Amino acid sequence: MIHETAIIGTNTEIGSFVKIEKNVIIGNNVSIGNFVVIKEGTRIGDSVKIGDLTILGKSPESNSKMARKPEITLSVLSIGDEVKIGCNTVLYRGTTIHKGVFIGDLASIREKVVVDEESIIGRNAIIETNTMIGKRVTVQTGSYITADMIIEDDVFIGPCCSTSNDKYMGTGKYSHQGPIIKYGAKIGNNATLLPGITIGRNAMVGAGAVVTKDVQENQVVVGNPARSILSSE
Amino acid sequence: MIHETAIIGTNTEIGSFVKIEKNVIIGNNVSIGNFVVIKEGTRIGDSVKIGDLTILGKSPESNSKMARKPEITLSVLSIGDEVKIGCNTVLYRGTTIHKGVFIGDLASIREKVVVDEESIIGRNAIIETNTMIGKRVTVQTGSYITADMIIEDDVFIGPCCSTSNDKYMGTGKYSHQGPIIKYGAKIGNNATLLPGITIGRNAMVGAGAVVTKDVQENQVVVGNPARSILSSE
Amino acid sequence: MIHETAIIGTNTEIGSFVKIEKNVIIGNNVSIGNFVVIKEGTRIGDSVKIGDLTILGKSPESNSKMARKPEITLSVLSIGDEVKIGCNTVLYRGTTIHKGVFIGDLASIREKVVVDEESIIGRNAIIETNTMIGKRVTVQTGSYITADMIIEDDVFIGPCCSTSNDKYMGTGKYSHQGPIIKYGAKIGNNATLLPGITIGRNAMVGAGAVVTKDVQENQVVVGNPARSILSSE
Repeated sequence: MIHETAIIGTNTEIGSFVKIEKNVIIGNNVSIGNFVVIKEGTRIGDSVKIGDLTILGKSPESNSKMARKPEITLSVLSIGDEVKIGCNTVLYRGTTIHKGVFIGDLASIREKVVVDEESIIGRNAIIETNTMIGKRVTVQTGSYITADMIIEDDVFIGPCCSTSNDKYMGTGKYSHQGPIIKYGAKIGNNATLLPGITIGRNAMVGAGAVVTKDVQENQVVVGNPARSILSSE
Repeated sequence: MIHETAIIGTNTEIGSFVKIEKNVIIGNNVSIGNFVVIKEGTRIGDSVKIGDLTILGKSPESNSKMARKPEITLSVLSIGDEVKIGCNTVLYRGTTIHKGVFIGDLASIREKVVVDEESIIGRNAIIETNTMIGKRVTVQTGSYITADMIIEDDVFIGPCCSTSNDKYMGTGKYSHQGPIIKYGAKIGNNATLLPGITIGRNAMVGAGAVVTKDVQENQVVVGNPARSILSSE
Repeated sequence: MIHETAIIGTNTEIGSFVKIEKNVIIGNNVSIGNFVVIKEGTRIGDSVKIGDLTILGKSPESNSKMARKPEITLSVLSIGDEVKIGCNTVLYRGTTIHKGVFIGDLASIREKVVVDEESIIGRNAIIETNTMIGKRVTVQTGSYITADMIIEDDVFIGPCCSTSNDKYMGTGKYSHQGPIIKYGAKIGNNATLLPGITIGRNAMVGAGAVVTKDVQENQVVVGNPARSILSSE
């Protein structure tokens, strides 16, 4: 282990070849895998478990073509108690992961994201910047959650769903707005959600549906473009 | 290299910064990359090639919200002769990879999976738990193979396909059952397969199709929802 | 750092646990993360930034079932000035990344690919072999770019798009040809492109569309199968 000034709690186990930068605080009863990088200032709560080959607290980058430049000043990455993080994951600075969250292998979460208590972020799932994810939400494996989304509590997003926040695809004509998914809604696998739409409370989107406009509370939609049907059966 | 009691064959090359846990057995003429973690008890056959930054034999985890808790007692990860494994991959305990299988970079395979001889698991492909994959199967890049699936011999699954095993999306009303794909069937890229359906022998599913019910032997289906057409042209 | 005969420029910072093979050339003002593998002969320009847990210059592998065997003789991986590469990425030998390109975390790029100046390859994006990507192209997060594609300058490919190059899905009846995407075309998120089609200049493909035949210059298509509509509104 290479570390500078980290504060490390009791009964915490750290694997081989771990690089910890300065001002990191790690709680009690934490388990950290091998080949892990913990960037400056990261806070890790108690009873957290972190897999091998993982990066915690990465700072965002950009190139000349990117419309949205990353913010210079970001708070640190904060990881709550009892969080479990898989292997080969990348979590950015300025993000807060609340108590009991599960993050699968090969997932990545950008800066300025909040993932609230007990939620699940599946393997290979990708969460873009400035998105809020509520409590007990499931984002299943391989789903893509764009920037500027709001996902309320108890939402279920199946595997391989895709969302977008840019109606005019890089032309700069539109202020970016990701979908808003209200309390308890369920999204089937490989569904496509267009920018700025709202999925109502307890609505259901069928697998493979392409949702081009708002879905009302309790409504069930399927198809391309998605249309309402009477029941989910 | 850090290792405890591993048994390592002759003419085997191990890269820099490799962590091998106890009771690991590695065959002859094996090549292992750099920054690799080999967990307790993993068995590796002869002439296996393992890329950099890879984890072999990970144990599953869960959080309070997950319906399916991982089994405490799992057999070890067993890797047959002549298997090739890419970089940044994650393979779990309790899984068997048979002779000559190819696993691409950034792929992950959960516990209690069997991948039979000469099959290909593409880059970024994700295989969930309790799924059986036959001989000479191709699971192309980025495809998502859900839990509780059966994929028979000589099946071809194109890139970015999505499958699901939970008809009621997290409500617990349904016993989980992934699709069953029979001998020689072919699935086009980015197709969506719903829970519990069967794709018949030598059937063909078009690219982007959303398959909501069983497909008969030799049938060709396309569209959303998928409907039968006369030929694949 | 473990290295053999690398030539390393001035003001270049290299992280902990970095493995550099022979005949590597690294420019000035470069920043390289931790747990990085740089394979034999790789060339890295000035002011390049490389994230943690990354592999540069990997050689391709295959198994007995693969139709396309990798070429034995490949040129080295060449990375131009001011390129930024994320964490957990895998870049192959025989590929050229031009000046100012941005490559996100967990992306992978195979051999014999060219990515021209200022283009963006998003996180988890996958680029197959023998594909040409022009200048100022955006390949957004999670998109799959198949082998044998041509993507001209200023193309925008949204998140989670899928392409394919094998009309008969592994039967060997078809010479592989990926889609050709002409100058300035825009592809919506989770769109599916079939083998060999051409997307015309400045055409627009809607989110979730399944494109089965050529799209003309300036045409807008949506649906499954994709059909022309009058305007993109």
